[in-house]
Amino acid sequence: MASQAVGIGLVGFGTIGAGVVKVLIRNAELIEARLGFPLRLVRIADLDLETDRGVDLGGIRFDDDGPGLLSDPDVDIVIELVGGYDFARKLCLDAIANGKHVVTANKALLAVHGAEIFAAAGAAGVDIAFEAAVCGGIPILRSLREGLAANRIQSVYGILNGTTNFILTEMERTGAEFDVVLKQAQELGYAEADPTFDVEGVDAAHKLALLTSMAFGSTLDFKSIPTEGIGSLIPLDFDSAAESGYRIKLLGIAKCHPGADGADVIEARVHPTMIPRASMLANVDGAMNAVAVCGDAVGPTLYYGAGAGELPTASAVVGDLMELAREVRRGQSGRVAPLGYPEAALEPKSLLSLGDLISRFYVRIEALDRPGVLARIAGALGESGVGIESITQRAAAVGEASVPVVLWTHEVKESAVREALVEIDSLAEVVAQSNVVRIEEDL
Amino acid sequence: MASQAVGIGLVGFGTIGAGVVKVLIRNAELIEARLGFPLRLVRIADLDLETDRGVDLGGIRFDDDGPGLLSDPDVDIVIELVGGYDFARKLCLDAIANGKHVVTANKALLAVHGAEIFAAAGAAGVDIAFEAAVCGGIPILRSLREGLAANRIQSVYGILNGTTNFILTEMERTGAEFDVVLKQAQELGYAEADPTFDVEGVDAAHKLALLTSMAFGSTLDFKSIPTEGIGSLIPLDFDSAAESGYRIKLLGIAKCHPGADGADVIEARVHPTMIPRASMLANVDGAMNAVAVCGDAVGPTLYYGAGAGELPTASAVVGDLMELAREVRRGQSGRVAPLGYPEAALEPKSLLSLGDLISRFYVRIEALDRPGVLARIAGALGESGVGIESITQRAAAVGEASVPVVLWTHEVKESAVREALVEIDSLAEVVAQSNVVRIEEDL
Repeated sequence: MASQAVGIGLVGFGTIGAGVVKVLIRNAELIEARLGFPLRLVRIADLDLETDRGVDLGGIRFDDDGPGLLSDPDVDIVIELVGGYDFARKLCLDAIANGKHVVTANKALLAVHGAEIFAAAGAAGVDIAFEAAVCGGIPILRSLREGLAANRIQSVYGILNGTTNFILTEMERTGAEFDVVLKQAQELGYAEADPTFDVEGVDAAHKLALLTSMAFGSTLDFKSIPTEGIGSLIPLDFDSAAESGYRIKLLGIAKCHPGADGADVIEARVHPTMIPRASMLANVDGAMNAVAVCGDAVGPTLYYGAGAGELPTASAVVGDLMELAREVRRGQSGRVAPLGYPEAALEPKSLLSLGDLISRFYVRIEALDRPGVLARIAGALGESGVGIESITQRAAAVGEASVPVVLWTHEVKESAVREALVEIDSLAEVVAQSNVVRIEEDL
Repeated sequence: MASQAVGIGLVGFGTIGAGVVKVLIRNAELIEARLGFPLRLVRIADLDLETDRGVDLGGIRFDDDGPGLLSDPDVDIVIELVGGYDFARKLCLDAIANGKHVVTANKALLAVHGAEIFAAAGAAGVDIAFEAAVCGGIPILRSLREGLAANRIQSVYGILNGTTNFILTEMERTGAEFDVVLKQAQELGYAEADPTFDVEGVDAAHKLALLTSMAFGSTLDFKSIPTEGIGSLIPLDFDSAAESGYRIKLLGIAKCHPGADGADVIEARVHPTMIPRASMLANVDGAMNAVAVCGDAVGPTLYYGAGAGELPTASAVVGDLMELAREVRRGQSGRVAPLGYPEAALEPKSLLSLGDLISRFYVRIEALDRPGVLARIAGALGESGVGIESITQRAAAVGEASVPVVLWTHEVKESAVREALVEIDSLAEVVAQSNVVRIEEDL
């Protein structure tokens, strides 16, 4: 069977699907040289048979017969690129039930239905690969699952969403408001018409759920991850950050702490974060992604690249196809479990509540410029046990009666800061809800 | 055989060997959880049985019986950590002949004898893994071989040697001379007593030889890689770089160009390089390593971490052990070829000669401050067709009769610059050999 091809079926012929077909066609010779055998794209299924995807399909069958593709004996590996939850879930489960291996880029699906899908694949003796689901072309899942497998992972910090990193980079660079930059990002194609999943941090939380499980061997628990988006940041926050040697990035953060009873306590959260501007992660600009992973043996490492886009995502999908195709040819499966731990070894682990987080905090309060207001703010913080490193009253914005008060706390429990802010936001002089940005120093 | 361990034998119990033992012992439970079975360190061989390595070996056999270890039926995988060429070569070949899989961190061995060793492993049906040989703990080989396997690799730029990156970082930071910083690096343990391999770029070239083959499917060709060290850099060069927005890094560079006849032409070289200070690679400081890889689908990516040291290197060695142990348990081998291409697919590819390199260049000339000298220098450059972007006569160093003349060329063939410098260095006013630093913009 020296030249026998491994058969591929693609379901979902949108942007990423077109990218996969382009890479499979233009790099066919290279892929065959590396594998020692060819990949053959047998058929493609999509409901939209009209749109020109800009690829010459040659003799590749293209129709809307999804079920036919999933049961085609010439298809060894199914690529799921339809996106979303329910239909994609059924599609993956049907493919698995038919004995097909599956490659997907669908982080939302796996963050929510991963346990069910991985269990089904394991029971059916087929593989599922999803490098493209986290940070597009960056081989971060492979690195966590195999390259760093000897390490007790201590922390994962990721710029996991290109849309929000683009917006934050532009807000910092131009001094413009969030809404203005979001609109530009939409015009440039960096943000979708409905940007909710990106700007509210949900997409990053999907990816963080997968990274957290792989890093710490915990069962997938997307719903428990505290998630904040970038919509409440204003230009002043970027100025304040720069003056103090920080940049603001939307980070997915996961850490593992030994709990009091010996059991691990996991920290997992998505929110805008101040990070030291000299750190590698702070230098990741525009729509690029990066993940910093620290392990007990390897120390700090970082992985950087394009986290989205037609061809970077296709790079990861086709890399997965090549890995699974090798297994198909060897008649093997299950080499490495999807999350890097055999299913039975994954454990539910307790999540640190945000209130118990110990950190330094940046706080912005909008208050009327009246005598005694700073004293009342400082008093509320003191009563809650929050130490103030610096507090500055800034100039009022043009036409505003109120002034921003910016303060940096010492290290303290978040619950103390929140308690103080309930008090502060109820002061007669405070005219808007205060905003908090957490600070991370150790990266 | 649910809990049957895979047996490991370690030859070479120095710093890295001790790190491997530490990781295998302290993370034994974690490693078993990830694999679903344990790794068992069966025995260790070293000639030095006296030195305290700071690890409790418990019941692990430790003696000087290398041949006994290589033929021990309880050993499935041999770790070669003796270093050097001849003895390590024989050790690997003997292990392979005995049907053992091999893990090594020995880049010198593989750069020079890799083809022979890989062929022997292939013929014997055993695996050889060497993630630790390039950039220590960074999983760069896995990423190139599998994560980016769908890509036509366009370029690899690597800070591949921690010793030289530490020295360059300190020279830039302190303004001190090379010799002074080298001595500090030796005192701090960042440079060896005989630092030749590091500071002359040989270690980086060993690693670049492996990366080049993996990236482009070319046969290993370490000897053909033009290699320059960092010893001729002076503090002024760092000042000049900073003023023009660059930093100086010792880079291993590999690129692939389509040749006139359709065959690839490879560019591979190791030398100090000016790179834009905004690039990710320029922000890699101290003893850290990083590799920037650009592929036709994925675009630019970067991998960062500790390139040497006891535990980071052990992280890679034990990661390799885990990968090979999975294969041992499945009764498999040869999943992915050592260089990512089956041996028969590797091709000798022609290497671009440095004279044909087209680049911008930074040139430092040491000349007596006499009327007409700048004109004669400019004249020599003009005659060779070298366009000058800027030329500056700097202040003389204290006590020096001569002054440095610093110039930046437009893009030009290196042979033209070299031709001009033969002329310039023969001028009566030029008192020392001129120094050239190549410039790379596209990273």
